[in-house]
Amino acid sequence: MNTSRLNRVSAGMKREGLPCILVSDIESIYYLTGLWVEPGERMLALVITDDGKACLFANRLFALTARPGLPLVEYDDTEDCVAVLSGHLPENLGVIGIDKRWASHFLIRLMEKRPGLRVKVGSAPVDEARMIKDAEEIAAMRESSHLNDRVLSALMETVREGDTEAGLGRRYVDIARSMGAAGCSFAPLICFGPHCAEPHHDSDETPLKPGDSIIFDVGLNLNRAMSDMTRTVFFGEPTEEMKRVYELVRRANLAGKAAVKPGVRMCDIDRAARAVIEAAGYGPFFTHRTGHNIGIGVHEPPDVSAVCEVVAQPGMIFSIEPGIYLPGKFGVRIEDLVVVTEDGCEVLNRLEIPEMK
Amino acid sequence: MNTSRLNRVSAGMKREGLPCILVSDIESIYYLTGLWVEPGERMLALVITDDGKACLFANRLFALTARPGLPLVEYDDTEDCVAVLSGHLPENLGVIGIDKRWASHFLIRLMEKRPGLRVKVGSAPVDEARMIKDAEEIAAMRESSHLNDRVLSALMETVREGDTEAGLGRRYVDIARSMGAAGCSFAPLICFGPHCAEPHHDSDETPLKPGDSIIFDVGLNLNRAMSDMTRTVFFGEPTEEMKRVYELVRRANLAGKAAVKPGVRMCDIDRAARAVIEAAGYGPFFTHRTGHNIGIGVHEPPDVSAVCEVVAQPGMIFSIEPGIYLPGKFGVRIEDLVVVTEDGCEVLNRLEIPEMK
Repeated sequence: MNTSRLNRVSAGMKREGLPCILVSDIESIYYLTGLWVEPGERMLALVITDDGKACLFANRLFALTARPGLPLVEYDDTEDCVAVLSGHLPENLGVIGIDKRWASHFLIRLMEKRPGLRVKVGSAPVDEARMIKDAEEIAAMRESSHLNDRVLSALMETVREGDTEAGLGRRYVDIARSMGAAGCSFAPLICFGPHCAEPHHDSDETPLKPGDSIIFDVGLNLNRAMSDMTRTVFFGEPTEEMKRVYELVRRANLAGKAAVKPGVRMCDIDRAARAVIEAAGYGPFFTHRTGHNIGIGVHEPPDVSAVCEVVAQPGMIFSIEPGIYLPGKFGVRIEDLVVVTEDGCEVLNRLEIPEMK
Repeated sequence: MNTSRLNRVSAGMKREGLPCILVSDIESIYYLTGLWVEPGERMLALVITDDGKACLFANRLFALTARPGLPLVEYDDTEDCVAVLSGHLPENLGVIGIDKRWASHFLIRLMEKRPGLRVKVGSAPVDEARMIKDAEEIAAMRESSHLNDRVLSALMETVREGDTEAGLGRRYVDIARSMGAAGCSFAPLICFGPHCAEPHHDSDETPLKPGDSIIFDVGLNLNRAMSDMTRTVFFGEPTEEMKRVYELVRRANLAGKAAVKPGVRMCDIDRAARAVIEAAGYGPFFTHRTGHNIGIGVHEPPDVSAVCEVVAQPGMIFSIEPGIYLPGKFGVRIEDLVVVTEDGCEVLNRLEIPEMK
């Protein structure tokens, strides 16, 4: 049990007026306990009370063992797991905060067994703790990003005419494995030419040809620290429009990173990046938010968007990934991860973003 | 909209006394509408009333279009999606059946907006419809299994000393792609020697050596029809114990398949396979259920287990996959998919299960 993380969660519960919360998110349970369990359809729940105590409810099949500070209540497939859980909740409990993504059938069965118990959405205490990374997490995220830099750099060296989007994705995975990363944080998103104008195009067997833009959006899962980076390059000689759009996105990326420091709202960071693109008349072609938080999960709350008024604080890690997408022609996106420091930010990616002459 | 499937669902709703259900499961929405949408954190809900009408609630970002018989209600990220949903539910609705895995925060917000509305777990009408495959699904499942047969057969031809578990898994994926399958139904589960005694061992870089057992547990996703098959072979000369255990599992597989016909309970099919293994004294080493249903999802309800009293009906598709696992030594599992016919079953896999001399 990670006591300092648990203490931050129970402080958040007091702020929210929640005497008890139920955590079912796999990543959140890992964050607090160090246990990575994928329960499938079975119930796995970490119940936390605001006195800073926690108890794990798990199917016997998961073969867990109690740990210091973490009592374990096991059930098996012949038992009603929700009855076991309900029986262990304090009798006079008036309200419980429920993990935002707990499966509804567990919640409905719990409400049937405890008709007097009020239920509220109760993910904020854990989400807010996870938002501020501690030293151990920052070190792991740095290592994952630096390895991602080296893998993508090695991949770029190999690119040849006729390579396919999906083929380069497989090569990224192979290089990552050879450099010591067991897995990716998401399937490599590599696309060519007009496909680059579709921000969520699935890589396919389209072959690379001269004049194509190439977007590499790739990340590693290194010891459960997720990296995520995007670079855009041109295969062969870019057109004047390609150069102009690339330079705009590069400057938007720099402007976004330059805006990051404690006290600045996420929407203002979004604005700083977006303003560069809007000023040049390409605003309608930057069709998504500027970034998202990241850590054990690839997409964590909050995000760097026009509507997010959360204020940047030291320890927050998020992406800065402006893009311009010209349908039917090409697209450019450039993404780095940053960690907020006391007086600005550290960019976790070191792979160059070359200036276009 | 698939009208005949929808009609079976609304008949099930009447049986269950549910005037309205909310379906959020991606596979179930695909089953009924033909639309495959992965909504991530955003709300996607198909609301069905027992008069056989359906309405889809979706974020504008998913870029869907209404279809005949399927009205579409869109919302965007600035709106409260649950308020939009609640506003469209009949005012006098007394009870609603909720998808078993709908995220709790949607349900809690719906209950806050509609305090008089009773909520029940409401997945049974769709699950029961999906349990009985129609002709189109059976044809797709047959095609997926037959391709899986050919891919595994081709892979087996290539096996050489020094190949690794994960390396063979990658080769399976490559062969599948070259034969026209875009993806797998699950990551290939290939293991050697003592790893075969761990039914859920993750393939790693262990090299193959003479005397090893090899378990190939593989499946394809072919047009959203999932295949799933297991074969066990021995690399080099098997020991007498290996031969004995293999023959037991082969005969248990045959006995399980022979027991399948309409009217027989799933637990009796489990029993037929298990009895062969128990009679030889290996009962404690057959540590899992005999099989699971499968279709659009790799694991669908119900299953072929000792506690499942569901009765086999024509159109049900499930696996028969007995195994014996001898810790520290080796393991054997042999799995086919079957579809229940009017008077028995059709085995969807054609890849030979050779007899051990």
